[in-house]
Amino acid sequence: MYKFLDGVNSPRDIKQLNVNQLNELSKDIRKFLVKNVSKTGGHLASNLGVVELTLALHKVFDSPKDKFIWDVGHQSYVHKIITGRKAEFSTLRQFDGLSGFPKESESEHDIFDTGHSSTSISAGLGIAVARDIKKENYQVISIIGDGAITGGMSIEALNNLGFLKKNMIVIFNDNEMSIDKNTGAFSSYMSKIIRNTETLMLKDNIDRIMNMTQVGGKISKKANKLTDTLITSILPEKCGFIDAMGIKYIGPIDGHNISEMIDIFDYVKYIEGPKFIHVKTVKGKGYRFAENNPENYHGVGKFDYKVGVLPSDKKSISSVVGMTLSEMANYNEKIVAITAAMPTGTGLNFFEKFHPDRYFDVGIAEQHAVTFAAGIAKNGLKPYFAVYSTFLQRGYDQLIHDVCITNKPVTFLIDRGGLVGNDGETHHGQFDLSYLNLIPNMTVMAPKDTDEMIRMIKFSERFETPLAIRYPRGNEYYIDKCHFKFFKECEVTEELPIDIYTVGKPEVIFNNFSNTSEKNNKKVLIIGIGNMVFNAINALEKYFETNTEKCSVDVCLLNARYLKPMSEERYIEYLEQADVVVTLEDNSIIGGLGSNIEKIMKENEINKPLKIMGIPDEFVVHGNTDILMDRLGISPDGIKRVLEEI
Amino acid sequence: MYKFLDGVNSPRDIKQLNVNQLNELSKDIRKFLVKNVSKTGGHLASNLGVVELTLALHKVFDSPKDKFIWDVGHQSYVHKIITGRKAEFSTLRQFDGLSGFPKESESEHDIFDTGHSSTSISAGLGIAVARDIKKENYQVISIIGDGAITGGMSIEALNNLGFLKKNMIVIFNDNEMSIDKNTGAFSSYMSKIIRNTETLMLKDNIDRIMNMTQVGGKISKKANKLTDTLITSILPEKCGFIDAMGIKYIGPIDGHNISEMIDIFDYVKYIEGPKFIHVKTVKGKGYRFAENNPENYHGVGKFDYKVGVLPSDKKSISSVVGMTLSEMANYNEKIVAITAAMPTGTGLNFFEKFHPDRYFDVGIAEQHAVTFAAGIAKNGLKPYFAVYSTFLQRGYDQLIHDVCITNKPVTFLIDRGGLVGNDGETHHGQFDLSYLNLIPNMTVMAPKDTDEMIRMIKFSERFETPLAIRYPRGNEYYIDKCHFKFFKECEVTEELPIDIYTVGKPEVIFNNFSNTSEKNNKKVLIIGIGNMVFNAINALEKYFETNTEKCSVDVCLLNARYLKPMSEERYIEYLEQADVVVTLEDNSIIGGLGSNIEKIMKENEINKPLKIMGIPDEFVVHGNTDILMDRLGISPDGIKRVLEEI
Repeated sequence: MYKFLDGVNSPRDIKQLNVNQLNELSKDIRKFLVKNVSKTGGHLASNLGVVELTLALHKVFDSPKDKFIWDVGHQSYVHKIITGRKAEFSTLRQFDGLSGFPKESESEHDIFDTGHSSTSISAGLGIAVARDIKKENYQVISIIGDGAITGGMSIEALNNLGFLKKNMIVIFNDNEMSIDKNTGAFSSYMSKIIRNTETLMLKDNIDRIMNMTQVGGKISKKANKLTDTLITSILPEKCGFIDAMGIKYIGPIDGHNISEMIDIFDYVKYIEGPKFIHVKTVKGKGYRFAENNPENYHGVGKFDYKVGVLPSDKKSISSVVGMTLSEMANYNEKIVAITAAMPTGTGLNFFEKFHPDRYFDVGIAEQHAVTFAAGIAKNGLKPYFAVYSTFLQRGYDQLIHDVCITNKPVTFLIDRGGLVGNDGETHHGQFDLSYLNLIPNMTVMAPKDTDEMIRMIKFSERFETPLAIRYPRGNEYYIDKCHFKFFKECEVTEELPIDIYTVGKPEVIFNNFSNTSEKNNKKVLIIGIGNMVFNAINALEKYFETNTEKCSVDVCLLNARYLKPMSEERYIEYLEQADVVVTLEDNSIIGGLGSNIEKIMKENEINKPLKIMGIPDEFVVHGNTDILMDRLGISPDGIKRVLEEI
Repeated sequence: MYKFLDGVNSPRDIKQLNVNQLNELSKDIRKFLVKNVSKTGGHLASNLGVVELTLALHKVFDSPKDKFIWDVGHQSYVHKIITGRKAEFSTLRQFDGLSGFPKESESEHDIFDTGHSSTSISAGLGIAVARDIKKENYQVISIIGDGAITGGMSIEALNNLGFLKKNMIVIFNDNEMSIDKNTGAFSSYMSKIIRNTETLMLKDNIDRIMNMTQVGGKISKKANKLTDTLITSILPEKCGFIDAMGIKYIGPIDGHNISEMIDIFDYVKYIEGPKFIHVKTVKGKGYRFAENNPENYHGVGKFDYKVGVLPSDKKSISSVVGMTLSEMANYNEKIVAITAAMPTGTGLNFFEKFHPDRYFDVGIAEQHAVTFAAGIAKNGLKPYFAVYSTFLQRGYDQLIHDVCITNKPVTFLIDRGGLVGNDGETHHGQFDLSYLNLIPNMTVMAPKDTDEMIRMIKFSERFETPLAIRYPRGNEYYIDKCHFKFFKECEVTEELPIDIYTVGKPEVIFNNFSNTSEKNNKKVLIIGIGNMVFNAINALEKYFETNTEKCSVDVCLLNARYLKPMSEERYIEYLEQADVVVTLEDNSIIGGLGSNIEKIMKENEINKPLKIMGIPDEFVVHGNTDILMDRLGISPDGIKRVLEEI
């Protein structure tokens, strides 16, 4: 089916191909990528951009002896295809299938698990340092792209690499994009570096030098010094930034020209010390739709590759966030919105459109983003930092110090709380409720549905201390009680008006504890937070559907709304009435909602069974969210089972 | 007493003084600093280095209208002296006294609380952005030094500053030091920038330009462009690194030459956009002892300023850590030690001395340090990252992703766990047990005394997954049971051999639950962790001393040793025997030891009173550790009181 790809089952097969054949193979791989990813979903555009680069790397270097570390990880599909995982590609990002990121557990060619950006140089340097201590001999190559170089830890690592002068290659895959268009002074500086064709290495020059310095196929130690001098003359250091780090800059070179890349990589192997090769690629290369609109093809769901990705008819929760904030900013001039290189992902692109002067994309720089927001708050404005749950882990210290110690009114719009599905371990927001719960002066909210989320965001406007509003990945959803039978059929004896303005107070979704007809029924108090309330309602619907006859439990379902603080008085009222208590969160069972309820019960000596349902103390693999929830027991069916057991 | 300083009570007074008088004032301030800090303890050397710089800044700019943000914060003493806090200086860092860091709550001249490094540019940029949105007009000046520029978030902020082109001044106080000698390629690059005296601004040049461009005391908009062109010609951009960020580099200039600094600051005010002024200072300047040995005078306790700081006759816990690890490395060639710019503070200077090839100071770069360690572990060596508790918050995401997801054998030696005393809010390690408890695959230990700490570090050698060993600030201390009366007088019925090798198992320090003579005694189970076990022992000693006659409680004291995991079986055994349970930790009461015990009790339906003693959900101010422990109720006296109440 694929003329060249069919014959490629390991990196050894790449080495047999000449440049023309590799170019043909590139075409095969692009077809393979588009066809497969259109069926599984995944990171398409980044991988289309690195086809030739990956082939050139595998042609010159010997994986796994030489170590490739792929930054951000989502650019590793071509590498996976080449290193024996082609046949499994239809399982990409599916439960029990191939991961969308490098996984040490998946292949000896995946040297280091990556998921978040900017880690590859640090990891590579660690590997290089250990190599030298162990007196081993191989190359370490970190491939960093998609904006990752602007993340602070990349620069920390370059600074250390230049100091240690280790033999290591950093490939800077410059496509002028992170997920969206790159921002920041550095990116604009790098993009301006123009190659001086007269002085930059040409095949002739390289051969000339190689001939002068090579001794029996190897470059002699003595000759190496000469090479070094010569290369400096044909590769003048033209990048002050990298130069300042004590790292040899080479480039920019064309990341779609396999021949040139092979020549340069072949040569660079012999240069001692740290090297930084600036490779220019086009994100989405070779697939027209993606090339024209790489943002839309960064991460895609299933689509018809002949027509491209069609606009969804569903609104994402993130886009509702962006629209809500943008509307608020129409009348509130103090509102400022901040993203760390995720304008589309967080929905802030809507805000940018209408309020460009109060919109800030700071680049992949969560540490800076948090303190920058604190500075804005200090000066009297109202900053919102919209950020994915796991990315906020990067700004944990700044959250504690720069926002919470001085109690500044920064609002964190925490997207991708809970399970995110196919991205897996590195992207599930399974710790946020707990790590936020721990910080003094923090208020933490989570809405049960999109309507409540909008009201919480509006509520935040008058909130004067640090606030986090946490919501899941996915499309908007609304809880409409009219749709649920049990709300109609069971007698609802108490329902408080919805009042999110009383800090710490839970909402009563449903309560038939005072069901007078069934005095002996077991009373189950369910306390859910965020979208788990939605799961609980669905569970109850299913439960009452199948158990109408033998219905022997009375239920009170509370929507916690606030994780911190929690109105102890209000909770005690319900806890005391209950026979059994169940808490529900898509967050670690350690230190979150369940733990808070446990504390209230223990402190008030309310001794009755408590079941804490949530994510156990383990990392959650990738896969469809429904499958994952089911396996963790927090799907509607799982909750229903618990009710039945009670 | 001080000829010039006596007359200085606000920044206005500085403006009245000429350069000669300011130079005299500098001498006064140095005397004042040395005298005062020798009585209170504090950060001496950094402040001695910025005397002239601070005076020149206050001479030219108008605080608090113009905003100074002092990075790391410990370099703000001179600023505090000038801004009306001279008289309170004898209370520096004492409980209820002046903070050793800028505090917004302390003065309108303290614009932003700082404690950890590298935050000032982010905060300043936030303030500048808000200023422009609000259409206000003043200068924002971030003063960054002591190695803070190499922290990743500084670079993230510079990248954003250069992109936003905001009117803002970054003063780079380059003393070639963080706490210890600076490391990293960037520092060495910056230190090599030599001022070209022929082209760099001289008073004459400046005057000439000012005359050409100034219109009625102000620089006209039109003229400003001309100025800009001219300044570029006399201030050629000589720093590729800063240039790459789109920021105007000026320097290096002499940070002890007040006249030159005033001229340059006066001029730079009129340059639009972001400016980076490279000021060279000498850490410890003007106090012979500190100038010769700035490391020893970074943070000092009380000392006789006439003879200088004398070597302590006590060994710090940190130095024991360094020595232990160094000894282990003598026979174990796999051991590698990493610090993020804290070789002396963490005790790794001992390791460096004997194993320079396996010692890595990565600079102020905790994010990098964690992933670098993960890379080293991946390649088969045994890395130890010695780091202060609160600084590890900077590497939280990396700890989760790069160490724990793949279960790599990195050992974290967590120094300054719990209360640290005079540094206050930003430095108390009050969250570490909880934020570590939350991470899957992590094992968390805390020793009761220095002897156990040594054994834990030795034990870590054969540990093959992520491990944290957490210990407090201070001098080594050993629990010698022979010294405690109650161990002798009370009958100890069970004492298990010390066995730290059984993961999760607590140690029984003392147990007279099976005291047959007093059947009706209340049985109190105390579970302590880390140095709180020491406090508990002292509390028991005091309790039994004053309550020998009416002794009506039986006590079992457990040393938890492991926070995670905890042997449920073993704890249940003791929990079931007890009438009352008390947990003790110098960590947040949320999500730590108490919370774990609560969970064990709840899950096993052990319904009896539990008192969780620890740090409440609030930030702890600065002050002597004994005072703070007493106020939090976790001092021996506080624990004794609780026993008495029971």
